[in-house]
Amino acid sequence: MPLELHISLANLHNNLRFFRQITKNSAELSAVVKSNAYGLGITKIVPEMERFGVKSFFTATISEAIKVRSCSKHSEIFTLNGFDFLNAKPYKEFNIIPIINSVLEAQKFIDTFGQTQRVAIQLNTGMNRLGLNKQALFENLDLIKKLPINLILSHLACADDIYSEENTNQRNLFTELCQGLPKARQSLSASHGALLGTEFHFDMVRPGVGLYGGIKNSGLKEVIQIKVPVLQSFIINKNMQVGYNFTYKATQKMTVATLAMGYADGLPRTLSNNGKLFYGNIPCPILGRVSMDLVTVDISNLPKIPHHLYLFSSEYEVEDFAKDCKTISHEVLVNFGERIRRVYSE
Amino acid sequence: MPLELHISLANLHNNLRFFRQITKNSAELSAVVKSNAYGLGITKIVPEMERFGVKSFFTATISEAIKVRSCSKHSEIFTLNGFDFLNAKPYKEFNIIPIINSVLEAQKFIDTFGQTQRVAIQLNTGMNRLGLNKQALFENLDLIKKLPINLILSHLACADDIYSEENTNQRNLFTELCQGLPKARQSLSASHGALLGTEFHFDMVRPGVGLYGGIKNSGLKEVIQIKVPVLQSFIINKNMQVGYNFTYKATQKMTVATLAMGYADGLPRTLSNNGKLFYGNIPCPILGRVSMDLVTVDISNLPKIPHHLYLFSSEYEVEDFAKDCKTISHEVLVNFGERIRRVYSE
Repeated sequence: MPLELHISLANLHNNLRFFRQITKNSAELSAVVKSNAYGLGITKIVPEMERFGVKSFFTATISEAIKVRSCSKHSEIFTLNGFDFLNAKPYKEFNIIPIINSVLEAQKFIDTFGQTQRVAIQLNTGMNRLGLNKQALFENLDLIKKLPINLILSHLACADDIYSEENTNQRNLFTELCQGLPKARQSLSASHGALLGTEFHFDMVRPGVGLYGGIKNSGLKEVIQIKVPVLQSFIINKNMQVGYNFTYKATQKMTVATLAMGYADGLPRTLSNNGKLFYGNIPCPILGRVSMDLVTVDISNLPKIPHHLYLFSSEYEVEDFAKDCKTISHEVLVNFGERIRRVYSE
Repeated sequence: MPLELHISLANLHNNLRFFRQITKNSAELSAVVKSNAYGLGITKIVPEMERFGVKSFFTATISEAIKVRSCSKHSEIFTLNGFDFLNAKPYKEFNIIPIINSVLEAQKFIDTFGQTQRVAIQLNTGMNRLGLNKQALFENLDLIKKLPINLILSHLACADDIYSEENTNQRNLFTELCQGLPKARQSLSASHGALLGTEFHFDMVRPGVGLYGGIKNSGLKEVIQIKVPVLQSFIINKNMQVGYNFTYKATQKMTVATLAMGYADGLPRTLSNNGKLFYGNIPCPILGRVSMDLVTVDISNLPKIPHHLYLFSSEYEVEDFAKDCKTISHEVLVNFGERIRRVYSE
């Protein structure tokens, strides 16, 4: 029995509907599908979203963008990591829109394509990661105005903190900078930004993690579940030890099971002696170190020896799992490995 | 410029030679290539090792084993995660040897193949993860003796601790259990076990992580380097902030660069405000949170704006990086993502 990542397309649709409902009517709903659609699989997820009406997709890299194009003839595809001007051909060949992040990229774009290809630009409104800041923008306004700009975007640094005044600061600066630019669609918000309210929506919201079940919210549903096969179960006696470096010692006789998922599959070592798998809603605590391909859990409380356990329960979602891993849902989702078979259900 | 993982086949050969030299003459040198050869790429690494003389390979799963077979016609291939008896056909079709871990698997193997296919068995000598323990073995000796056993193996839990007496305990139990079984090759040690000395070598050692540069040792060389393209560089002033949730605030004017590697590529979020990239041996500290596809570093100390930085230096190897990530080399290696282009050099 292989290790399986089950993806509910119905719940993905639910989450698309949710973002469509909360987004102001005049704004477009696009989707971020970088890192293979957060591990769910670009070639299956993109056509599904297109059927729902999504027309614009964001990737990080040009190779991801080409993968999107392979399954989507007519959509707009943007590359967030900028314009790779040393490898400019694919933008034209596959009709992909680079997001210009710097003056250098702007100049190279004009040199390469003139005004024949559409382009987007990103403004740095305070996150200091990528994008043109105020000074660079206004010192090079003549150059920037030559670009056939299709979309102006920026990114919020603190959108997951609804009380942060940085959100308003970034929004105000974004509005100010856009006023100096030619008229084009404007976009500021990903998932968390979209949840901040319509004043953050501008002309397009671009959710990612929220679509894939990575945010706990009454309107959003879990999209994934991982089914982990039990390879072997056995009884260990008091004082017997489990796993690498014997970091677990049994305090009593217990029934344990070893399952076919390890850190190579995205069950991180931080969960050693700390995480759990599930039989329905019954937790099965992880015993000892998580191995590369294996994990051992306590199944003493189960009514029978199971054929498989699950990574999530109805009360323990991706965001809860991420907390136990001391990270965020995004990192959890993109770390589920290639070895896990993806299984899609309507 | 794409993000690249450079793999030195010359250094891989060095490491194979090292393990060949330290392994006792009568013992075979095999190799563990699970999790896509620790992220280096099965289809390139396996033929390279075969040219060196490696004849036996270990994977975790049957699908990995089939991938090994696709590039290696004549080698022995073992699946460590047991015999997937619900999907038994590929073992015969691709001539793959399952490692029987339980009485159930032994029975299913006999039911399915009789004595027509070779098989290996794993003994549980104390790690309590997978394998037949002493009791299960001797209570089912008639069944086990029917198996056409080609290899008997077990696994050390504490081999990275050369002072642990558990190593000797496991070795002694392994020897004792093997004496009750039909004559077959015996194997106890992976990389760290091989380093413990020839009394741990039996008839075969099966290194994994040590081959791929994950162990610091005077005889072993680094095999990988990651070349990370700079997307953009700019100056930030005192009190400007960087990255998600503004966890970094500049204490002075500085030059920073944002590069095309993030946690989706295996640069974990634990390195936020904690890790570094390299320009030669000059460290460039990570500023703020690592993003999914991006990381921002301080390049104020560099003589010029670089086109790329490196993940490792001559003094900062995979194992050092793993320590900063609060994990081990194995997890680091298998987490380098699919988006990174693999580049092989002789």
